[in-house]
Amino acid sequence: MLNQLDRQLDLMFHALADPSRRSMVERLSRGPASVSELARPLTMSLPAVVQHLRVLEASGLVRSEKVGRVRTCRIEPAAFSQFEQWITDRRRGWERRLDRLGDYLAEHPDEPDEHSAKPSDRSGP
Amino acid sequence: MLNQLDRQLDLMFHALADPSRRSMVERLSRGPASVSELARPLTMSLPAVVQHLRVLEASGLVRSEKVGRVRTCRIEPAAFSQFEQWITDRRRGWERRLDRLGDYLAEHPDEPDEHSAKPSDRSGP
Repeated sequence: MLNQLDRQLDLMFHALADPSRRSMVERLSRGPASVSELARPLTMSLPAVVQHLRVLEASGLVRSEKVGRVRTCRIEPAAFSQFEQWITDRRRGWERRLDRLGDYLAEHPDEPDEHSAKPSDRSGP
Repeated sequence: MLNQLDRQLDLMFHALADPSRRSMVERLSRGPASVSELARPLTMSLPAVVQHLRVLEASGLVRSEKVGRVRTCRIEPAAFSQFEQWITDRRRGWERRLDRLGDYLAEHPDEPDEHSAKPSDRSGP
């Protein structure tokens, strides 16, 4: 039942659910880098870095290109936008809901809500 | 070497790397819901939904509260903001870089870049 966008989002979220891969994305967000530049701050072997890079490439968030002996990696901004859009859409969902709730409360200032006690309840004998 | 924020981001990205959990978040972004309301559009057992809910709660993106026999789930907007911030910060990284590149090119209009042929190269015999 998975559509293409769902599959892509699975791969993107999975790719970023790892601190080493996030640090590679943080590095690449400042500009393209070779695999060895990506590996430098990480405490892992070069093959392990290449494995992480494959997961990032499969997600579409990063692409790489080999020229001569050097593989240069870069961010794919279009993929990131798609991903950011999913999150923004969700946030807009609850913001709209809170706006509607605020409008309702502004239009009905005298109706106490069901969770708070009525003022008359507070004035005991 | 994982700090608290890194651990939290791991859990959030992992939680959203599943289409059923994303659909639960989409539903909750429109307002609070009971577990059975969350389960309704999904083709899975109630215990499976509860398992997914636990993953969402562990990530901090969703919280739930049981009153009587009904467990009501809702989005935790503060956790979402943290998560959204990580993505926005990365995008700003490459946007700043592209801005600087644009400024450089605007200030040096006569210098051909290394990837394009010089105009004089194009005028053959």
